[in-house]
Amino acid sequence: MTLAMNAQEVMDYMAEVFPQVRDDFAIDRLEETSLTMRLLTDERHLRPGGTVSGPSMFALADCAVYAMVLARVGRKALAVTTSCSVDFMRKPEAGRDVVAECRLLKLGRSLAVGDVLMFSEGRPEPVARATMTYSIPPAR
Amino acid sequence: MTLAMNAQEVMDYMAEVFPQVRDDFAIDRLEETSLTMRLLTDERHLRPGGTVSGPSMFALADCAVYAMVLARVGRKALAVTTSCSVDFMRKPEAGRDVVAECRLLKLGRSLAVGDVLMFSEGRPEPVARATMTYSIPPAR
Amino acid sequence: MTLAMNAQEVMDYMAEVFPQVRDDFAIDRLEETSLTMRLLTDERHLRPGGTVSGPSMFALADCAVYAMVLARVGRKALAVTTSCSVDFMRKPEAGRDVVAECRLLKLGRSLAVGDVLMFSEGRPEPVARATMTYSIPPAR
Amino acid sequence: MTLAMNAQEVMDYMAEVFPQVRDDFAIDRLEETSLTMRLLTDERHLRPGGTVSGPSMFALADCAVYAMVLARVGRKALAVTTSCSVDFMRKPEAGRDVVAECRLLKLGRSLAVGDVLMFSEGRPEPVARATMTYSIPPAR
Repeated sequence: MTLAMNAQEVMDYMAEVFPQVRDDFAIDRLEETSLTMRLLTDERHLRPGGTVSGPSMFALADCAVYAMVLARVGRKALAVTTSCSVDFMRKPEAGRDVVAECRLLKLGRSLAVGDVLMFSEGRPEPVARATMTYSIPPAR
Repeated sequence: MTLAMNAQEVMDYMAEVFPQVRDDFAIDRLEETSLTMRLLTDERHLRPGGTVSGPSMFALADCAVYAMVLARVGRKALAVTTSCSVDFMRKPEAGRDVVAECRLLKLGRSLAVGDVLMFSEGRPEPVARATMTYSIPPAR
Repeated sequence: MTLAMNAQEVMDYMAEVFPQVRDDFAIDRLEETSLTMRLLTDERHLRPGGTVSGPSMFALADCAVYAMVLARVGRKALAVTTSCSVDFMRKPEAGRDVVAECRLLKLGRSLAVGDVLMFSEGRPEPVARATMTYSIPPAR
Repeated sequence: MTLAMNAQEVMDYMAEVFPQVRDDFAIDRLEETSLTMRLLTDERHLRPGGTVSGPSMFALADCAVYAMVLARVGRKALAVTTSCSVDFMRKPEAGRDVVAECRLLKLGRSLAVGDVLMFSEGRPEPVARATMTYSIPPAR
């Protein structure tokens, strides 16, 4: 079990294939079965009242698991999300990044599963949780 | 069982509270327990390859169920998403709107549940499905 | 699109591989992309108060989608559930079978997705909904 | 944050209200926001091949979160499951108990959320994960 890409390589690859998200996310930490990613919270991620929107939290969880899978299988793979579940538990605080703690629960030949707890930075209680399943195409 | 708001009133209210989404969605049809909403697919909703992004489909499903609940309970309620599940089953086609068919499965005092099938317009097979649960705050 | 097995063949196969469930379920209707299955509600499926238990409804949804997939791909396949989501919306009524209406939403080479609405027999409002994803092993 | 009931009190209460499950589950550990519960794996929980069935793992996750909520809110509350998501990731091993590690992620006035990782006893990799949402009725 080793990493196929480091955090910088993962971010460079994501910026290349998803240019829209290049300014949205940063990887704080990357290990063999876990990763910390933050949403660089900006006006465009907010709902009225200053809270981070549901689609922005979905995107954070999705990117966190995608980055984790990429880091393990390398850039040759074109993984796609096949299913997810998300629970929104508390209102994220305005003016704070949302930090996602991702664990890779399974990395099989064709399916990968990761789960994510999301926090308003510096707060102990999770604002949301998510599980994402990615389909990994067969190596050619 | 009657509607508290018609389609135009729902869209006006959503444009007021979520100005970011005013250009993204349109309601094609609204009945007492079902609704059709479309994502007015634009460059900003796409992933490379021209396919609609996961967060954009999540946002469509979320807005469709939100609009359905609003239409029934009226603008006084501040419903929030508490949980969701989404299955991404096929790649949406480039250059077509994504159309969401929403059914209201439950409208209780405190929880509402709606499910959604999403299609690339004019195609028979669903590209994704989602279920959204909304928490409805008690009337004051 | 044709069926690889009819309802009787599906039930015979399930009775062979899952003998525990042979007395629990019956197929009322089987078509190419949908199926109706009932839970033959008995004492062992109940919670106190006479309502059908969560695990019994989970098992019904799981078997309904499994039967639907089997009917299409035939007995050679050993499909396994990889993920599910369930929403419990109303209390099932005592003394009534629970009837599951299953739709096959996707039948791909490696993944199948079906969703299920469950009703207390004869009642119009669903007691629960579920989505099940099955992994289909490659043909040898 | 203290416990309203200890492990023995929780098990006694569950045996009283769910007599069917009294022989199925045991609490190994109970703390303020986490709990370990095991499925005392027996013939009736198995599928052919000796693996633990999906409904049995669903029941374990459901009981683990229910016990966690009970331990916090006390026996006066009649909590019911409103939604769940489950990912089945590996085949449980025959002849081993399934051990569930539950974390209480939210305990609000009306909703509680817990997630669960399940392991074949003594094995490091999870066989399944689940999230359960319980609705807590208002105190009378």
